Amino acid sequence: MDNSHITKSIQALADLDLGQMYLNDFFLTWDKTDDELAAVFQVADILRTLRDSNISPKVFDSGLAVSLFRDHSTRTRFSFSSACNLLGLSVQDLDEGKSQIAHGETVRETANMISFLSDVIGIRDDMYLGAGHTYMKEVAQAVQQGYEEKVLPQRPTLVNLQCDIDHPTQTMSDALHLIKTFGGLDQLKGKKIAMTWAYSPSYGKPLSVPQGVIGLMTRFGMDVSFAYPEGYNVMDEVVEVARDNAQKSGGRFEIASSMADAFKDADIVYPKSWAPYHVMEQRTELLRAGDEKGLKDLESQCLENNRKHISWECNRDLMNTTKGGSALYMHCLPADITGVSCEKGEVSADVFDQYRVPQYIQAGYKPYVIAAMIFLSKFENPAGKLMEVFENNTSRM
Amino acid sequence: MDNSHITKSIQALADLDLGQMYLNDFFLTWDKTDDELAAVFQVADILRTLRDSNISPKVFDSGLAVSLFRDHSTRTRFSFSSACNLLGLSVQDLDEGKSQIAHGETVRETANMISFLSDVIGIRDDMYLGAGHTYMKEVAQAVQQGYEEKVLPQRPTLVNLQCDIDHPTQTMSDALHLIKTFGGLDQLKGKKIAMTWAYSPSYGKPLSVPQGVIGLMTRFGMDVSFAYPEGYNVMDEVVEVARDNAQKSGGRFEIASSMADAFKDADIVYPKSWAPYHVMEQRTELLRAGDEKGLKDLESQCLENNRKHISWECNRDLMNTTKGGSALYMHCLPADITGVSCEKGEVSADVFDQYRVPQYIQAGYKPYVIAAMIFLSKFENPAGKLMEVFENNTSRM
Amino acid sequence: MDNSHITKSIQALADLDLGQMYLNDFFLTWDKTDDELAAVFQVADILRTLRDSNISPKVFDSGLAVSLFRDHSTRTRFSFSSACNLLGLSVQDLDEGKSQIAHGETVRETANMISFLSDVIGIRDDMYLGAGHTYMKEVAQAVQQGYEEKVLPQRPTLVNLQCDIDHPTQTMSDALHLIKTFGGLDQLKGKKIAMTWAYSPSYGKPLSVPQGVIGLMTRFGMDVSFAYPEGYNVMDEVVEVARDNAQKSGGRFEIASSMADAFKDADIVYPKSWAPYHVMEQRTELLRAGDEKGLKDLESQCLENNRKHISWECNRDLMNTTKGGSALYMHCLPADITGVSCEKGEVSADVFDQYRVPQYIQAGYKPYVIAAMIFLSKFENPAGKLMEVFENNTSRM
Repeated sequence: MDNSHITKSIQALADLDLGQMYLNDFFLTWDKTDDELAAVFQVADILRTLRDSNISPKVFDSGLAVSLFRDHSTRTRFSFSSACNLLGLSVQDLDEGKSQIAHGETVRETANMISFLSDVIGIRDDMYLGAGHTYMKEVAQAVQQGYEEKVLPQRPTLVNLQCDIDHPTQTMSDALHLIKTFGGLDQLKGKKIAMTWAYSPSYGKPLSVPQGVIGLMTRFGMDVSFAYPEGYNVMDEVVEVARDNAQKSGGRFEIASSMADAFKDADIVYPKSWAPYHVMEQRTELLRAGDEKGLKDLESQCLENNRKHISWECNRDLMNTTKGGSALYMHCLPADITGVSCEKGEVSADVFDQYRVPQYIQAGYKPYVIAAMIFLSKFENPAGKLMEVFENNTSRM
Repeated sequence: MDNSHITKSIQALADLDLGQMYLNDFFLTWDKTDDELAAVFQVADILRTLRDSNISPKVFDSGLAVSLFRDHSTRTRFSFSSACNLLGLSVQDLDEGKSQIAHGETVRETANMISFLSDVIGIRDDMYLGAGHTYMKEVAQAVQQGYEEKVLPQRPTLVNLQCDIDHPTQTMSDALHLIKTFGGLDQLKGKKIAMTWAYSPSYGKPLSVPQGVIGLMTRFGMDVSFAYPEGYNVMDEVVEVARDNAQKSGGRFEIASSMADAFKDADIVYPKSWAPYHVMEQRTELLRAGDEKGLKDLESQCLENNRKHISWECNRDLMNTTKGGSALYMHCLPADITGVSCEKGEVSADVFDQYRVPQYIQAGYKPYVIAAMIFLSKFENPAGKLMEVFENNTSRM
Repeated sequence: MDNSHITKSIQALADLDLGQMYLNDFFLTWDKTDDELAAVFQVADILRTLRDSNISPKVFDSGLAVSLFRDHSTRTRFSFSSACNLLGLSVQDLDEGKSQIAHGETVRETANMISFLSDVIGIRDDMYLGAGHTYMKEVAQAVQQGYEEKVLPQRPTLVNLQCDIDHPTQTMSDALHLIKTFGGLDQLKGKKIAMTWAYSPSYGKPLSVPQGVIGLMTRFGMDVSFAYPEGYNVMDEVVEVARDNAQKSGGRFEIASSMADAFKDADIVYPKSWAPYHVMEQRTELLRAGDEKGLKDLESQCLENNRKHISWECNRDLMNTTKGGSALYMHCLPADITGVSCEKGEVSADVFDQYRVPQYIQAGYKPYVIAAMIFLSKFENPAGKLMEVFENNTSRM
């Protein structure tokens, strides 16, 4: 390992203003200051360098991390599990099907009951519009209150593993991938990123990734082009966030109405399907009402509507219109790949395949981003702690 | 941390006669001597003080703890998981649905197969009357035999996480809560506790909590008033245990026929629903026979019968009749709260809310009680081991 | 502990040629050289001796082990979990039902997504003929590629926890049991082992155990008698492997047509039911086609066919014909025991019971065999590492 690289990184971390991170949660990237985001990138990078150098950053001797997944998950589940294991925490899954939660427990009660010896709570709740973020805030309030009432000896940190509004562990990994690809956070300024809708033969995909991407990438002075077919808009509040961010950071934010416009001269493209906001709203109501017939009807309508936009596919012709014909293609995975996972999808097989390795690398930042969020919440002086880990030099294996 | 407090606590532990705890199981509180129970309280308290002082009592470098939950569980699952993690054990769930147990395995075989490197087995089995405790004993016998036959290199400790007879990790936590609230085990002498039935719009709740409470609280010279509507009696054997205990400890045990009688001048009240013994017996037979129709009929009858006693609700008026109008309200949670989790339930919302924090604190002792049970079974000289942990002073984080 | 025993064992390990074990997988025993198999036995035995002497061989400070069970499992699941825990790895289950694998992910993608911080992947996939082994190879190729492409910082080791061809963690445990029972690997030369079919009232049992046994036991110069009713043959390729092995090792391999012939003068008997190869082929096709009716019909035919061979039961009379009437009886468990788990099964209750303890001991080697496979793949100089563990002398508890 390059010792000077790591000590320089730790020094750069020490120079940041970590203001509110200690003992705090991570819900939305736009809750955080620029320095706080920079700290996450920095700590993630340092943790990765340490582990890659066989130095164990196991800062907990024992401790529990609770995971609650209200939707299917492979990569986020393993990323959370890996992050916790790296720091020394054991994951205990809160499987609502196996719990007594249905027996009239309140959120406040459950939150306290699972937290007596827990340092972290990671939640994925992206199915119901207006629900996921609200639920996470309730859990956070409950454990904060429990901590103040001396019910809990420590305040567990909440990590948003995807809600209805944002997917910060994904988008922060995406951003770290850009930082690494383009050679630094400061190198992102002026780069054009096309966050666009893409056709998929399924429906009901969450809004949190496109929302999270426009809410985050506008922070770095980037030129964010957001494109989708008419009617596929996302939450207004997040569009406002993106606009504000762009203005403050000296970047740009525009809504385009075609993939072609967004891709034109782009440095980065992120084509991905999602369901229109108003559909997600209807779906939430129908799910709540348990209206199976209504859900079926909505699905049919949506799929039919999606099919009108089957031409929104990221393919070679479109890629050729990007900067030098070689924009970086990104996806949060799994992607709907034409001729591979479906007849017609978000991306052509040749484009996907060309960028397979970078996409996997992109995904590989997530465990470290999660670990960094936990780390920054748990240590008042994270730079000092990381220097201690580095100097202790305990072998991981 | 107050060092003299902890060394005094460890000294007090050293003064107890731990007779049969080493390499032994924890099934029923009435299997244990007074000193053995006192040791559990003492070790639980010391473990908590250590962890709260950021000293890690991780006494296992590696080792497995098996959990088997035959009923839904949130707090007991997390308590067990927390306790094992605190001591350094990893939990591996025995999910009977995912196992080959149906393929003709005997209890003896399974017990050995899961125990080759296991230090602890925690079981919750409270659904079938006459089954849970028996099953745990069979598992204990099997691993004892396996140990003697040199099949197993160590004898895993059984911890009863709730059976059809007792729920010792719950009631010992309840008792520790009383000890802390009233200022010592010796302060419980003469205190009146009302363990009473309460109305719930559900049926089939286990008997183990009321049975466990009358079987344990009578040990400490308390005045235990046990009240329930006609027909809602519990196991005769446990009532006998309670009577005997009261006589030996210089306390009192009486069966009252109204909540009002039991609450009168009580220092502590524990109103909680349960199903009549004879109903649980019928239910067990019907469950075994897979008689769905019979179960439905039984449920209807029971709910109808319960409704006759809808007035058995712990509310402000009743609380006003307790000692100074301020008895400590207890519940094992989750409670059926009138107007919150059901139309009419075990407790009024105002009373529940007034005691919400103490109840959460009550629940918070469970991880430490479980850890203490494991600790006392694993170390021949627990006081010495705790002193070692204290002196090593390894930071938890 | 006998120190000279352990240092001698480590020296014996150091003398072996470990050729391809480092950073390699364990799929089939016949992929491995004699020295490589001997190394697994040696390391398993050393790890066991260390743990039995309360010395912790926890060589990983942190790290993840992924388990993927595509069939029910008790003993293999706990063995894998125990092995990983012993070495310091945390198990994260890849539950395909809870993952996004259905959402169009490829094997390559999933394999990389779960492996960013994973050291081991254990897979059980024995249901579909022609699928399990192929799938494991695909996963191995994917992580190898991911490692070479710098997607993964380490190359996770694949451990075959049972496929359609072999069940190496089972058969290596079986062999270690024989080594211990007969006093050494060299003592197996010339010993007669009867691997025979036995009647069971169920159908569709995998071929991997009988195939694995004939593929392994022929390595040690044993006299392997393989008996089954007409039509119950296994994969031709594995029979070829067994024949070749026998020739090279100076042992014998014969196919007998009755239990009686195979048992005659046998030192060891391993009577166990399996489904005929052609039935497993049909079953695979029907399972793939989702043909429920076809599966039902196939099951009826098979059970009827099985019943023609109801006399293939290991009982006292047959045992009396073995060497000195006291051959070692083996089973991978759970067994179908006449009058216990079924009316008529693979073995009579008296024979099973006589050998209950040895069978449990046989099963108890599996955690150490799995740990040894992992260990040998992770350390280039395993003898040196084990000596380090021995000298460090860290207490397990």
